[in-house]
Amino acid sequence: MKKVQRICAITHILTENPNKDFSLGYFADKFECAKSSISEDIKMVRETIDESGYGYLETTSGAKGGVRYVPYISAEETKEVLLQLRDKLLEPDRAIGGGFLYTSDIMFDPKFAKGAARIFAKRFASIDADMVVTVETKGIGTALFTAELLNLPLAVIRHESKVSEGSTISINYFSGSASRIQQMSISKKGIDKDCRAIVIDDFMRGGGSMTGIYNILNEFDAKAVATGVVIVAGGKENKKIEDYVPLLILHDTAAPFTIELNEELYK
Amino acid sequence: MKKVQRICAITHILTENPNKDFSLGYFADKFECAKSSISEDIKMVRETIDESGYGYLETTSGAKGGVRYVPYISAEETKEVLLQLRDKLLEPDRAIGGGFLYTSDIMFDPKFAKGAARIFAKRFASIDADMVVTVETKGIGTALFTAELLNLPLAVIRHESKVSEGSTISINYFSGSASRIQQMSISKKGIDKDCRAIVIDDFMRGGGSMTGIYNILNEFDAKAVATGVVIVAGGKENKKIEDYVPLLILHDTAAPFTIELNEELYK
Repeated sequence: MKKVQRICAITHILTENPNKDFSLGYFADKFECAKSSISEDIKMVRETIDESGYGYLETTSGAKGGVRYVPYISAEETKEVLLQLRDKLLEPDRAIGGGFLYTSDIMFDPKFAKGAARIFAKRFASIDADMVVTVETKGIGTALFTAELLNLPLAVIRHESKVSEGSTISINYFSGSASRIQQMSISKKGIDKDCRAIVIDDFMRGGGSMTGIYNILNEFDAKAVATGVVIVAGGKENKKIEDYVPLLILHDTAAPFTIELNEELYK
Repeated sequence: MKKVQRICAITHILTENPNKDFSLGYFADKFECAKSSISEDIKMVRETIDESGYGYLETTSGAKGGVRYVPYISAEETKEVLLQLRDKLLEPDRAIGGGFLYTSDIMFDPKFAKGAARIFAKRFASIDADMVVTVETKGIGTALFTAELLNLPLAVIRHESKVSEGSTISINYFSGSASRIQQMSISKKGIDKDCRAIVIDDFMRGGGSMTGIYNILNEFDAKAVATGVVIVAGGKENKKIEDYVPLLILHDTAAPFTIELNEELYK
């Protein structure tokens, strides 16, 4: 195998497996060449990937030396993703009334969900976490891609307690959006005890649903170490929770509604 | 930019954007070089990616000539993914009783969901389709990755009619698993009229839920052009639907249950 082909193959494998460690020995065995050659190849791959703006390589040296591809999104591209999301949300006919926006098509479009996830994955890359947690349904797309990019498992809290979940932990919470008490439920096997969770959701108004997720985590002695929300309504005021990263801020108390980008993410 | 760096960058961009067309001009502009050089680079990228077993390049020639990365999974790797899924499902304590298996952790693990999706994406690659459709909740992971790999949007049918969906289409269906009539619902904007859908779900027993999805599609004059199910219980008998691709077949009428691989997928 020629050097250029090795470089191409290494790029391909690393890109397909974000945040997964590969030893130099893995590539040396695969391509039947010396670790020193692989080390040179990876240097070349690193330079190119660094320039791409899509990610960068982290290497560890020593006997167990290896390399991982860490996805990244530049400030410029972050802004572009946020603008595209905003423009999509501002399309006519999305306002349903009662302060609701139709967003299902956006939240489940792999392009938008992955764009949002790339921003969260970059922001939370250095946080020591064991899993990503969301509550069904519309946040699942962004949460799943975030989990993929960070190489973590995903736990999805359900609204109903399903027989296929076995024994479950359930909590009640007050949903401001629905103006009523709702339930959340997850299998007792769903979240590891004492784990550190990155919480992702698609929408937050008062924070009732997010408080519900935190209470579920508490039942497992688990902890939210970071929280990301795609759309937060109404600014920072009157939220039951304090520390979260929004992508977009929806101002909908006056018509027509407006959408503000979270500038912190690209400044 | 050196040739080897261009090749590395092209590999990276194509891999990050499955089934998306890129013109030679796009790369020529990006790397400020002649289309003929890009054409040579792509030849090299193709050879390497073809060998990787992860995918292959499709090119179209002529003035609008371009290239796309089509994800692929080899027979060998397909079998490996299916064996890993099976072993995971056979872990102790998954059987809940009443014929139910705890699978949430597997269905939402990006590794397993993407593995299953790679098999479906390969199988359905040549089918002309407009979108992927699933019903909440546990099939969403596999459906989302399938949609990403095929570069299609995803529509998720809900069980409850939500206010944030606006006007909805709802149907009732008989769920054999739950032994009762259940509802499915989706926004009137959720599925395009006359569209061709690839339907993905995590589990099928009698096919009641799948019939429900088909009935929803009918309401939009849309059509299921392919159906993929991760786990099908009880073999081919007594299903309300006929044409579907299972990954695993669960035999659970006698204890202990056993899991058969769909050998067609890797033969």
